[in-house]
Amino acid sequence: MQFLSDNAASVHPAVWEAMKAADAPDAPYDGDGVSQRLDDAFGEVFGRECAALWVATGTAANCLALSALVQPHGGVVCHREAHIEQDECGAPGFYLHGAKLMLAEGESAKLTPDTVRAVIDPIRDDVHQVQPHAVSITQASEYGCSYRPGEIAAIADLAKERGLGLHMDGARFANACAFLGGSAAEAASAVDALSFGFVKNGGMSAEAIIFFDRELADIARYRRKRAGHLQSKGRYLAAQLLAMLDKDLWLANARAANGAAQEVAGAAGDRLMHPVEANEIFLKCTPQERDAVRAQGFDFYDWGEGAARLVTAWNTPQDHAIKLAKAIASL
Amino acid sequence: MQFLSDNAASVHPAVWEAMKAADAPDAPYDGDGVSQRLDDAFGEVFGRECAALWVATGTAANCLALSALVQPHGGVVCHREAHIEQDECGAPGFYLHGAKLMLAEGESAKLTPDTVRAVIDPIRDDVHQVQPHAVSITQASEYGCSYRPGEIAAIADLAKERGLGLHMDGARFANACAFLGGSAAEAASAVDALSFGFVKNGGMSAEAIIFFDRELADIARYRRKRAGHLQSKGRYLAAQLLAMLDKDLWLANARAANGAAQEVAGAAGDRLMHPVEANEIFLKCTPQERDAVRAQGFDFYDWGEGAARLVTAWNTPQDHAIKLAKAIASL
Amino acid sequence: MQFLSDNAASVHPAVWEAMKAADAPDAPYDGDGVSQRLDDAFGEVFGRECAALWVATGTAANCLALSALVQPHGGVVCHREAHIEQDECGAPGFYLHGAKLMLAEGESAKLTPDTVRAVIDPIRDDVHQVQPHAVSITQASEYGCSYRPGEIAAIADLAKERGLGLHMDGARFANACAFLGGSAAEAASAVDALSFGFVKNGGMSAEAIIFFDRELADIARYRRKRAGHLQSKGRYLAAQLLAMLDKDLWLANARAANGAAQEVAGAAGDRLMHPVEANEIFLKCTPQERDAVRAQGFDFYDWGEGAARLVTAWNTPQDHAIKLAKAIASL
Amino acid sequence: MQFLSDNAASVHPAVWEAMKAADAPDAPYDGDGVSQRLDDAFGEVFGRECAALWVATGTAANCLALSALVQPHGGVVCHREAHIEQDECGAPGFYLHGAKLMLAEGESAKLTPDTVRAVIDPIRDDVHQVQPHAVSITQASEYGCSYRPGEIAAIADLAKERGLGLHMDGARFANACAFLGGSAAEAASAVDALSFGFVKNGGMSAEAIIFFDRELADIARYRRKRAGHLQSKGRYLAAQLLAMLDKDLWLANARAANGAAQEVAGAAGDRLMHPVEANEIFLKCTPQERDAVRAQGFDFYDWGEGAARLVTAWNTPQDHAIKLAKAIASL
Repeated sequence: MQFLSDNAASVHPAVWEAMKAADAPDAPYDGDGVSQRLDDAFGEVFGRECAALWVATGTAANCLALSALVQPHGGVVCHREAHIEQDECGAPGFYLHGAKLMLAEGESAKLTPDTVRAVIDPIRDDVHQVQPHAVSITQASEYGCSYRPGEIAAIADLAKERGLGLHMDGARFANACAFLGGSAAEAASAVDALSFGFVKNGGMSAEAIIFFDRELADIARYRRKRAGHLQSKGRYLAAQLLAMLDKDLWLANARAANGAAQEVAGAAGDRLMHPVEANEIFLKCTPQERDAVRAQGFDFYDWGEGAARLVTAWNTPQDHAIKLAKAIASL
Repeated sequence: MQFLSDNAASVHPAVWEAMKAADAPDAPYDGDGVSQRLDDAFGEVFGRECAALWVATGTAANCLALSALVQPHGGVVCHREAHIEQDECGAPGFYLHGAKLMLAEGESAKLTPDTVRAVIDPIRDDVHQVQPHAVSITQASEYGCSYRPGEIAAIADLAKERGLGLHMDGARFANACAFLGGSAAEAASAVDALSFGFVKNGGMSAEAIIFFDRELADIARYRRKRAGHLQSKGRYLAAQLLAMLDKDLWLANARAANGAAQEVAGAAGDRLMHPVEANEIFLKCTPQERDAVRAQGFDFYDWGEGAARLVTAWNTPQDHAIKLAKAIASL
Repeated sequence: MQFLSDNAASVHPAVWEAMKAADAPDAPYDGDGVSQRLDDAFGEVFGRECAALWVATGTAANCLALSALVQPHGGVVCHREAHIEQDECGAPGFYLHGAKLMLAEGESAKLTPDTVRAVIDPIRDDVHQVQPHAVSITQASEYGCSYRPGEIAAIADLAKERGLGLHMDGARFANACAFLGGSAAEAASAVDALSFGFVKNGGMSAEAIIFFDRELADIARYRRKRAGHLQSKGRYLAAQLLAMLDKDLWLANARAANGAAQEVAGAAGDRLMHPVEANEIFLKCTPQERDAVRAQGFDFYDWGEGAARLVTAWNTPQDHAIKLAKAIASL
Repeated sequence: MQFLSDNAASVHPAVWEAMKAADAPDAPYDGDGVSQRLDDAFGEVFGRECAALWVATGTAANCLALSALVQPHGGVVCHREAHIEQDECGAPGFYLHGAKLMLAEGESAKLTPDTVRAVIDPIRDDVHQVQPHAVSITQASEYGCSYRPGEIAAIADLAKERGLGLHMDGARFANACAFLGGSAAEAASAVDALSFGFVKNGGMSAEAIIFFDRELADIARYRRKRAGHLQSKGRYLAAQLLAMLDKDLWLANARAANGAAQEVAGAAGDRLMHPVEANEIFLKCTPQERDAVRAQGFDFYDWGEGAARLVTAWNTPQDHAIKLAKAIASL
């Protein structure tokens, strides 16, 4: 029973269907009819005009988004545990041409205005130190916690005050939205660019970069091609995105994953290291306890010495979640 | 009737099937069972050990391959009309960190030892001028012409003598192989790294980078992740590649495309600007003549003032090719 | 007798004196009293507000100036023979993070609106091709020819119309000004950024980057530090620049060099390959003729098979020039 | 009385003399007679063959040295307080094309094998995390502390074991050597590349990069030109370096600076935050105490809230040091 990650789950049937439906030849790159519908489709989701670019991975989405906000001599404030810092093999250094990641603290991998200030206020306003150009936050965070709209607004206010762009890594944005219950617009309020993830939520190979400023999108279009991310049969990526937006499949999938996570979390009690506000559960447990759980057929990652990470997906069977909950409860 | 390009054609049914067959969850990235079979599968095709990395686009394949061969302060000799120079929005400058493309001449967009020497011999051996680190050739060339094994060997000898890496852009490598009739090994003889294209030949979103030196591949693995090209559901890319290799589907598809091109070429007579040795036809014709052909329902690109480019694909219907041949013959 | 280059000539006594006069400790980097006077001093020369940054080399000046005008995904139109293309070991690729040099033609290494258009007009307005962001011209050109104010204005008009920045490589700007006889403002009219050379004109190690837009200068300040070009004892560089501006020493030195060049040119007749409008003479002559001149004690560079390049400096002794003229006349 | 920094002190008379002596024209760049003597002169200092490249700043020296040791997709382990991390405006990101600085801890800004291991051991050996390519240490450290030969050897052993290059930032290498009393070879034992500082020690604008592997130097030569750091009148830089090496002026100057620092340190007692092992003194003192000292005519930097940094130079007058010592003692 799979609780390793949501990043290799099967593709949702509706996504398959939409890809097949896009099989007839059409204009290459993003000139096809499906790609051309993306701006409007995402505009409806966010209730404001936007430009939506498909891309194959979250790393590319994050870095292309940031490349439109950050000059090579600038920096990006992000959490010390952020994916862009920890898990992208230096991709931001590549895409931003050596710009610096400036590491901030924060509970459950969430930044706050205070932790951002703790990083940027001591920076001398001279040419000897890299100056921040943007802030990047992750919704839901690397520990599966969701920023409340007010929390984002506070960071956005600070960013605006300091002239910084605001990027949101939304690899699990759907799960955050499903958890928060409000609109997507609220969950991404005041953000300049959003990496909107679909691969972890039932897609195959398509993420969206959403720009709420068309000029930034126009920069990113060149950068996407330059990075080899402009696929010639782009219609198959656009089709994945539209399928996910159709009838809010993205929310339904995320709710399913979140539900399974809540099922598991309910049995975890004091073991929980972070509130479960998406589809990830971080659990205190000894190596022996991990062995005991694995012995019952569950796959998951160790999280350092005394903890485990469990991730549910859009298609985690309910009975798997129930069984896992029992296994944890009986530890 | 479509003769615009092969880069947006439909996906071959066998590729669809293989992707569907890979739908069950497996290890992420390239740790899955399908990806793990690639080295051996391509090793058989080339008759020697190799490391094969999937990637979503030819631009990424070319640039990642070159990034393992070229230092940032070096240069790459390529044809003035090469895709890496003309059509990748400066991707080599990005991936190679500012290394220089050194533009050489050559009939039908093919380099020769002489045209390479014409570029590199005048370079002073001092630090004021960029020194070449690699040569990149395109098989089949941007004008649809195929290097004979001896032609490649001559360039490879020169490269070796000068300490240069040799890269082959094989966006239409299959078409070259089908035309040449020999083995894939011959068509890519003495090459250090090959961008082996499948998207134009019936694939959806998977190209292969083939390294015949494992150390180069190991560099490229980091560069691939760093460029955001390591997809988490990589098994769907690997599946495309294996489906294409299975029973030499890649050759069958290429033969079909080449056959349609020969059909058209047969009617073109003196209008042919280059020998048709793959699936592209470059035709001298006036704007009026182009209009006349288009009026009969054919789509294709202008090629400057007085020419047209016609491209066939794996699934070009035979009767379309025959009709186009007639339309050209009757001009 | 030295006619190899002006780039290794002795340092002018007034420059030495000014450096010595700056020896007392002062604030580091460019916070010292001498550096602080540069903006005003150059503002007087150009008759308009500017920001002046010292830097040690012309390559750094060119590339830092361009880095404020060009995004990494853009391009710079320059002459095929431009120093940034031919002699800087790919420095623009480094400083501009892979942006592309777009090579244009032009008599005597001078661009014209037509030759610029010939490069940029065929560029398709899509993401597959690098788009130009700036034009760079060299005053005096690599063949020692000076743009007339009207010629620059025409290029500037085109640049403005197309939204391109305009950079001037003025490694021998002083010689151009001395030749043209007008003001420095005229010789650099409508330029956004100027690399104003002093090393070839009696300085030791200081060039100036002049920005006529303070925002561009502010970008370049960070880039200068980031490139390791912000020297801690910057006052010694600033002192060189002020010494050169003082009582128009820069013009006097350039006039001396130009005068020597005219002396030589007067004897060259039909051998001249380009008009002599600065301090460089390009001469048709056979290898035998070169040998004959060298045998009389003259040092200079071959310029390909059948030509020679002769360069005068601020301190070329008049009798050396006269003797060289005679040697040439008697060939 | 100046205790702000050694980085803007006057130039030593012997350096001036040597520069004047180099005024006669010679070959440009580093082809001149003075530059040609550097390898041998530094070879004697270090007792082994080396290649020495002049460069204008410590930032350029550090980054060029590292650029020969680190690939763009790699990382450099350095101390959290290292100059390359704190004070170079992201220059390593620029020169290393986005490679990552990996920040380690250590008393008095000195690394130890344990603190290096604490950074590199947790890095997963996969493509998702940046892998270390080199270690950079600072001799003397940013807090004026000198590595003992055994301490360097231990780090060098670790580096070798893990296949990492070892770089030493020797902006104040002379002060460390003077403090340690042994040979320069001991103070830089087992290092692959050393940034050997002279500007802070009586030079004007010349630092040396010392490579103990000629192949690394050959890479750095191209990178130096490409970074605009190859000055055409390089003989004036080479002359500075030779003047400093002549009769061990570099050691005499460093001893003078260190002596003044010891004078001050002797009065500091428990206020000392770090042992004084070079020419920097870090002192606990309240803002009021700083005011009191400044009121007596001393210039120095605050070091955060409750501390001060005092730096002596090669020409700090003894009586200034004595007076400062008294001022501190009487707090």
